[in-house]
Amino acid sequence: MSDAFHVYDTTLRDGAQREGISYSVADKLAVARLLDGLGVGFIEGGWPGAMPKDTEFFARAAAGELTLRHARLVAFGATRKAGLTAEQDPQVRALLDAQTPVVTLVAKSDRRHIERALRTDVAENCAMVADTVRFLRGEGRRVFVDAEHFFDGYAFDPDTALRVLDAAVTAGADVAVLCDTNGGMLPLGIAEVVAQVGERTGFRLGIHCQDDTGCAVANSVSAVQAGATHVQCTANGYGERTGNADLFAVVGNLATKLDMPVLPALGDLTRVSHALAEIANLAPDTHQPYVGSSAFAHKAGLHASAIKVDPELYNHMDPEVVGNVQRVLVTEMAGRASVELKGAELGLALGAEAVAQVVGTVKEREAHGWSFEAADASLELLMRGALGEESPVPFALESYRVIIERRGGEEVTAEATVKLQVGDERLIATREGNGPVNALDAALRAALEPGCPWLGGVELSDYKVRILTPGGSAGTHAVTRVLVETSDKLGEWTTVGVHPNVVEASWLAMVDALAYAALHSRG
Amino acid sequence: MSDAFHVYDTTLRDGAQREGISYSVADKLAVARLLDGLGVGFIEGGWPGAMPKDTEFFARAAAGELTLRHARLVAFGATRKAGLTAEQDPQVRALLDAQTPVVTLVAKSDRRHIERALRTDVAENCAMVADTVRFLRGEGRRVFVDAEHFFDGYAFDPDTALRVLDAAVTAGADVAVLCDTNGGMLPLGIAEVVAQVGERTGFRLGIHCQDDTGCAVANSVSAVQAGATHVQCTANGYGERTGNADLFAVVGNLATKLDMPVLPALGDLTRVSHALAEIANLAPDTHQPYVGSSAFAHKAGLHASAIKVDPELYNHMDPEVVGNVQRVLVTEMAGRASVELKGAELGLALGAEAVAQVVGTVKEREAHGWSFEAADASLELLMRGALGEESPVPFALESYRVIIERRGGEEVTAEATVKLQVGDERLIATREGNGPVNALDAALRAALEPGCPWLGGVELSDYKVRILTPGGSAGTHAVTRVLVETSDKLGEWTTVGVHPNVVEASWLAMVDALAYAALHSRG
Repeated sequence: MSDAFHVYDTTLRDGAQREGISYSVADKLAVARLLDGLGVGFIEGGWPGAMPKDTEFFARAAAGELTLRHARLVAFGATRKAGLTAEQDPQVRALLDAQTPVVTLVAKSDRRHIERALRTDVAENCAMVADTVRFLRGEGRRVFVDAEHFFDGYAFDPDTALRVLDAAVTAGADVAVLCDTNGGMLPLGIAEVVAQVGERTGFRLGIHCQDDTGCAVANSVSAVQAGATHVQCTANGYGERTGNADLFAVVGNLATKLDMPVLPALGDLTRVSHALAEIANLAPDTHQPYVGSSAFAHKAGLHASAIKVDPELYNHMDPEVVGNVQRVLVTEMAGRASVELKGAELGLALGAEAVAQVVGTVKEREAHGWSFEAADASLELLMRGALGEESPVPFALESYRVIIERRGGEEVTAEATVKLQVGDERLIATREGNGPVNALDAALRAALEPGCPWLGGVELSDYKVRILTPGGSAGTHAVTRVLVETSDKLGEWTTVGVHPNVVEASWLAMVDALAYAALHSRG
Repeated sequence: MSDAFHVYDTTLRDGAQREGISYSVADKLAVARLLDGLGVGFIEGGWPGAMPKDTEFFARAAAGELTLRHARLVAFGATRKAGLTAEQDPQVRALLDAQTPVVTLVAKSDRRHIERALRTDVAENCAMVADTVRFLRGEGRRVFVDAEHFFDGYAFDPDTALRVLDAAVTAGADVAVLCDTNGGMLPLGIAEVVAQVGERTGFRLGIHCQDDTGCAVANSVSAVQAGATHVQCTANGYGERTGNADLFAVVGNLATKLDMPVLPALGDLTRVSHALAEIANLAPDTHQPYVGSSAFAHKAGLHASAIKVDPELYNHMDPEVVGNVQRVLVTEMAGRASVELKGAELGLALGAEAVAQVVGTVKEREAHGWSFEAADASLELLMRGALGEESPVPFALESYRVIIERRGGEEVTAEATVKLQVGDERLIATREGNGPVNALDAALRAALEPGCPWLGGVELSDYKVRILTPGGSAGTHAVTRVLVETSDKLGEWTTVGVHPNVVEASWLAMVDALAYAALHSRG
């Protein structure tokens, strides 16, 4: 994408402020890869020096763990402290050490914050901004400046707010980003201020909105209509308090309402939105604009036939543009076309009958909480079953038993026993583990490994649990969905299991994982 | 409230279109009472004649089951069918039979819908509108007209759209409500059209927005700024697809940003929002503007001391105005200031020593995967422990044991046994459950309930599992974090447990939940 318009993502920094989100470094790398795949221009990775995990993220990215095709990586941080030079300030050094091509500095632009929170005066605040920008420019960095609390500050004392922008841009900052940090603005007011500031300064302006009035998306889009050419968002609107402007809604609006195709991979919005929710371990918002599973769902009733004939009369846009689908009945996403496509991808020649059977099974299972979107290996096994292939599971289960015990202040123990039939042989093994699933995995391997030496190279590399349909009168009665990621030297694959009992759900996913390994002769 | 501005709620009709909502008639009566308590001007109760439950709702309301203090009840329906007089049309009769002082009619105003969905022409469509309005006015009803698909229709063929409004108002309709039925508008466009239509017609205009661009709240507020004096919303933004404009955000914005105090009981917004979520059987959206439990939650860290001194610098408004509270989240960035703030919030006088102890414990536990930001109740117990208060856990654990078994194709069983000491008594109980945690919860309750009858009202309402530090070489060795949400008639609280074993992590969170209940004498 050209530099004329910036889609700037801050999921990894501002988005991570959302109550309940706690990204690991591996999560952060995965998030960055997905955002890069969408084609965002800038990915703000965190605040090196202030947050140890962010420092590690930048180190691992620089060491080669993150190869970006579209996006440039951004380190976020504060200007130099009062009384230090930029070069001396360890936080500024940490920004350099992050080795990103771009640095975004946060600068106070509301006089009340300068005086009451920073306890300094406007002149020193501007010097801190200018010095830091100049130093980083001298070190070859491109610099953006987030003018914190800009709209409140501009309403209270416009001169101070504009002086801060001027200090930043004169020192070499590329974009002055106007931030509605407390999120109290409305779109007509945002548009008016952005247009005014643009006219008074001539600077390249960006916009950063929080959703406290429920208007972050609208405010961001209004700012663009008023002249901003850099928009800061977070995936799914994650962020502190009520959140930030949702990347997917902002981009969807710019592309489909204002004819600004600012992202190359618009058709991936829905998939990436859901994958990012998965990594954040949050349920996707089914009612989210553009990407929610209900976003184009019509309760059939009166208009069903009209919707069928003239869908464009009842949708504000074609859902396929953002990789979403219209749903008229209460059915899940699987359609014939996507199953055919998937089969072809896996090299399976599914006939019409097998496709129908797979669609039926997927719909039925998804109604019970299964999800094959992130579990390709389970889907492949299901497709092979529909083709009449024999099950590749290398055993028949007679029984398993898991016992978890705790005595007073003592250790908690978990012990599992499996009894299997493999060919003519009956195998029994008992093993202990850290928890029930770990013990069961260990017992299963102990029983199988003598006959399947290849199993030694196959390991469970990630394990995710989601409780579905919570919020009822008895949370522990909810269904549990387990996703298991398994890997060997050749690659990794994901399988799924669903059951009210977390141990059985895990068992189902583990058995699929072994079946997939056996199928692909990973030995 | 005066008639000069209408807050019009359609939760019971348009809100009920949300996927997953299914109100009983008793639910509908309860919703109407709560909305009336807030002071909304109009409550649209449903579509009598088309929906049997709605017909019953109006009948029971008219029979005396619903006494409204502020609001007027509204019946919603269609204009007469082509070829019938309004008087003959059974659907129009059903509107009269609903015995409401106000009727809202839906009218097509997009020529494409008139021709392709209704299969008639503009003249007949206008006659259907005018006849039905005139008939209902003759029967003493006040009439509003919802101009469906107005914005799309006005863009496509403004003359037709305006003719339909004219037919309605000339026949006696009070308000011409412009509907963004497909939800594709943005705020600057909405404001422009509303201003134009107001200027060209001089009619009293209303606004009804769907949230497909994520702008329903912004669009509604922009329409009001452009001259609309009647705004249609739903509680919590419930509605078809992505939903409608959220009543609480719209009203919050009008009152606190535009100085339009359109609801008398603003301080009840938060309580009523949560109660309405309860009736809809949906989890409240914690990140909802104004009323969400995270709406004024700050991850403390760097700014904690500043927030403490000047909360108004960090909130876009005083949360108490809408009955909400500021919360400081104690996170990995936890410092003394945020712990002090949190202690004050809980009414605990933590001295310097206790603060230091809490900070130390939180930091140490968070390094091991605990998270207190979403587990206020566990944090309170930790703080009370630091103050030397005795543990409120009403028992001492001797041991527990959980057995999960599966035999071949048979059912999976989970059985738990707990052995406890309560005072001088030794209690043993065994129970089965859907899974290990459910069984353990059941056994613990079975043992304790005879001595703690209050436990009957305490229930586990949500249960979340997160696997931490995944991506290592052995996923099943990762640590498990469990968040348990527990509720009783008085409120809800969240506790946390972390352990490699999911059962023990759940146990820790459940014990904290019971301790919190015991502490606050929920009996």
